[in-house]
Amino acid sequence: MLSDRFVTRFLLIRNSKVFKALVISVIFASALYAGITSYDIPSQYSRFLTAFDYGITIFFTIEIIIRMLAEKSYFKFFKDGWNVFDFLILSISLIPVLGSETVFVARLLRIVRILRIITVVPAFRHIIDALIRTIPRVGFIALLMFIFIYIWAAIGTLLFETADPGRWENIGVAMLTLVQVATYDDWATIMYEVIDDYPLAWFYFVTFIVVNAVILLNMVIGVIVDVMTRETKEELDS
Amino acid sequence: MLSDRFVTRFLLIRNSKVFKALVISVIFASALYAGITSYDIPSQYSRFLTAFDYGITIFFTIEIIIRMLAEKSYFKFFKDGWNVFDFLILSISLIPVLGSETVFVARLLRIVRILRIITVVPAFRHIIDALIRTIPRVGFIALLMFIFIYIWAAIGTLLFETADPGRWENIGVAMLTLVQVATYDDWATIMYEVIDDYPLAWFYFVTFIVVNAVILLNMVIGVIVDVMTRETKEELDS
Amino acid sequence: MLSDRFVTRFLLIRNSKVFKALVISVIFASALYAGITSYDIPSQYSRFLTAFDYGITIFFTIEIIIRMLAEKSYFKFFKDGWNVFDFLILSISLIPVLGSETVFVARLLRIVRILRIITVVPAFRHIIDALIRTIPRVGFIALLMFIFIYIWAAIGTLLFETADPGRWENIGVAMLTLVQVATYDDWATIMYEVIDDYPLAWFYFVTFIVVNAVILLNMVIGVIVDVMTRETKEELDS
Amino acid sequence: MLSDRFVTRFLLIRNSKVFKALVISVIFASALYAGITSYDIPSQYSRFLTAFDYGITIFFTIEIIIRMLAEKSYFKFFKDGWNVFDFLILSISLIPVLGSETVFVARLLRIVRILRIITVVPAFRHIIDALIRTIPRVGFIALLMFIFIYIWAAIGTLLFETADPGRWENIGVAMLTLVQVATYDDWATIMYEVIDDYPLAWFYFVTFIVVNAVILLNMVIGVIVDVMTRETKEELDS
Repeated sequence: MLSDRFVTRFLLIRNSKVFKALVISVIFASALYAGITSYDIPSQYSRFLTAFDYGITIFFTIEIIIRMLAEKSYFKFFKDGWNVFDFLILSISLIPVLGSETVFVARLLRIVRILRIITVVPAFRHIIDALIRTIPRVGFIALLMFIFIYIWAAIGTLLFETADPGRWENIGVAMLTLVQVATYDDWATIMYEVIDDYPLAWFYFVTFIVVNAVILLNMVIGVIVDVMTRETKEELDS
Repeated sequence: MLSDRFVTRFLLIRNSKVFKALVISVIFASALYAGITSYDIPSQYSRFLTAFDYGITIFFTIEIIIRMLAEKSYFKFFKDGWNVFDFLILSISLIPVLGSETVFVARLLRIVRILRIITVVPAFRHIIDALIRTIPRVGFIALLMFIFIYIWAAIGTLLFETADPGRWENIGVAMLTLVQVATYDDWATIMYEVIDDYPLAWFYFVTFIVVNAVILLNMVIGVIVDVMTRETKEELDS
Repeated sequence: MLSDRFVTRFLLIRNSKVFKALVISVIFASALYAGITSYDIPSQYSRFLTAFDYGITIFFTIEIIIRMLAEKSYFKFFKDGWNVFDFLILSISLIPVLGSETVFVARLLRIVRILRIITVVPAFRHIIDALIRTIPRVGFIALLMFIFIYIWAAIGTLLFETADPGRWENIGVAMLTLVQVATYDDWATIMYEVIDDYPLAWFYFVTFIVVNAVILLNMVIGVIVDVMTRETKEELDS
Repeated sequence: MLSDRFVTRFLLIRNSKVFKALVISVIFASALYAGITSYDIPSQYSRFLTAFDYGITIFFTIEIIIRMLAEKSYFKFFKDGWNVFDFLILSISLIPVLGSETVFVARLLRIVRILRIITVVPAFRHIIDALIRTIPRVGFIALLMFIFIYIWAAIGTLLFETADPGRWENIGVAMLTLVQVATYDDWATIMYEVIDDYPLAWFYFVTFIVVNAVILLNMVIGVIVDVMTRETKEELDS
């Protein structure tokens, strides 16, 4: 598609330390921009900030073009999920802002852009990799916990709907209430709201807390054992 | 009891992937049904939902008959605890609904029915197995914690009964209050309610929190060590 | 001191399964008694309960005499710390009740008596042994945490005494407030009480929470590593 | 610089058990002093306390001179970071108190002085060493969590600024609010404040809580694995 010499030149740019440092600092600048714009800015500065934002967008456009030209084919570029992620965010942020809905989306994208720090700094990528590897274990137990909360919420609506409709009206609201109970946030208040009508409500809440804690404990232990046996194996292999 | 060819045919049905997938999807449908009925349903749809519920019950009846016929004897079928569990839930849900009490039980059974997901999906069974294996360790320390809370609650009623009767009236209420303190939910409020009358109440609460945390820490560590030594042994044996 | 045949007879009684089961059930009965008396008892039953309490006291007196006679010398009996513990509780509970102060102490002793379950059931003794073995690690870090809370409390009284005297009046009250913050119980409320006067108060609270969490994390890890290396060593030795 | 015999004499003093015990007890006395002065002291005692404080300052001055003279050169003394720490605190506390600002600093220094317990007691130094060794792992994940909270706070100000300005006004306030949510302190109250305007706010909060818990879990596991592999290696080497 492109001459090899052309590609090699852009590859050199992309892999240079200066380019990487520049990208990281521009991402940090865009993070700073997202933070600053959350404050009330005097109008004399806001024009400067808009220019700053345009600058960041232009830089990111140039950066992605360089990274695309450094690849032998567009196909290879889009094979990497993180590249697709970067490309999509940039494309949407290049669409001109029209209604108030789009303003919100545009501002949201400027925030999501900060996530690029993870793709750029290798140390963060390793942590994210480690997080992803624990998903199978965590995911299945999370699913089990979801089923557990779902069943408990269904029982909760059955029992407490008339006593405290605001919290137990339907299964959606009841699940949110149980997530609150699972984090121990003001659960006693929720219980005392219904205990006058159902003196055995304490049993419903205490069993929920205990079962929840046991499931969580098992998840933690499962992940620890998983990680340790994997690390031990890697050590034995090396 | 039944001819072998007859049994083999039902065994083929029971073990087929289609049958398993059908069972899982009907259980999910019944879970969805339990969730939807917790919302206020317009009357024109409620008739449809009742029909849907009848359909689920009929399906589960046929399914259990197939599973019973696939077994060489009824005795063998009822030897498995999970089969007994399924049979009981189905039997009770087949009893015609009469009073309002029974309506509640019937609705509760429809929710409990969702637990069948655990018996059907093998991955969940493994997690439940792992949970059950930690019971001996967890159970004994839980018993110790129960005794600890019991003793502390008895002291609490002795000390704070007159200062805050709502929370320390008798040992039952006091234990519930201490479960709340153990989850750190608004414990300072409970303490400040009695600290004017008993300036040394802080000692009662702080020691409870510290001892409780130490017992819990030991339970967590005990379970981790248990699981890891078991896994290491299994690895060495294989 | 006593003839050997005499000692052997009492030793046989003490070590018999019937005697042990009897002691455990009487301790459970005394625990039940402590729980029941926390409720308002109708006067016709209270006479029965008093008789029940006398019975328990008499049983414990006979039990300790048997255990003393089963030993070759009193000196040997009192060498075991748990025996001294039992003896002291019994002695004090035998002193006749006089003023209202003593009534409180007498009721407290009846509760403390329940702790004898730990001395009698071996499984509990093992858990307590395991708890005690973690004390060196836990103790030192607990001391470090105490110093940390002490220093932070001193700074807290310096900063917030005028803004919220109820919580930061002196170092004692401030330490209690920080224990509350360490358990995350309504800490934001405590912070927002002083943040108007000291806009940088958030730094005081957030650093406290983070440092506290890091110290606790290290304590947990320290104990886990300690227990695991000990268990591994014991396995290698056996 | 100084004759060897001179240095040796002071080295003997510095390393003597009596000197060390004296230093530890004076530090404890200074800690006690910091605690006592936080209470309202009757004026007849305050003169005594001022004298006590002068005594401590003089002792620490003599102690640091001995430790400096026990070193072969001043350069060697100031190479140890803890010595610099001690020297700076003492120097500032020797500057005469003038305005009310300086009074505050002077009192703060008297509290910071207590930290010297860590430099003096070896067991504490070991714990601090262990804490410091976990920083690389903890630090990187803490940075990741900071980025995560930063992004979430930016989204929060975007969504909830008009609904609950007190908590979501700008990114600074929003981050503080999210730290509160991360500790599960009254997070449901914060959510219910905005859920009427944004019915999907529950998704914002629940994802924050879940992602936060997963990151924290990974940090804990990472540190455990790190510490255990290091300890195992040290055992194998020895």
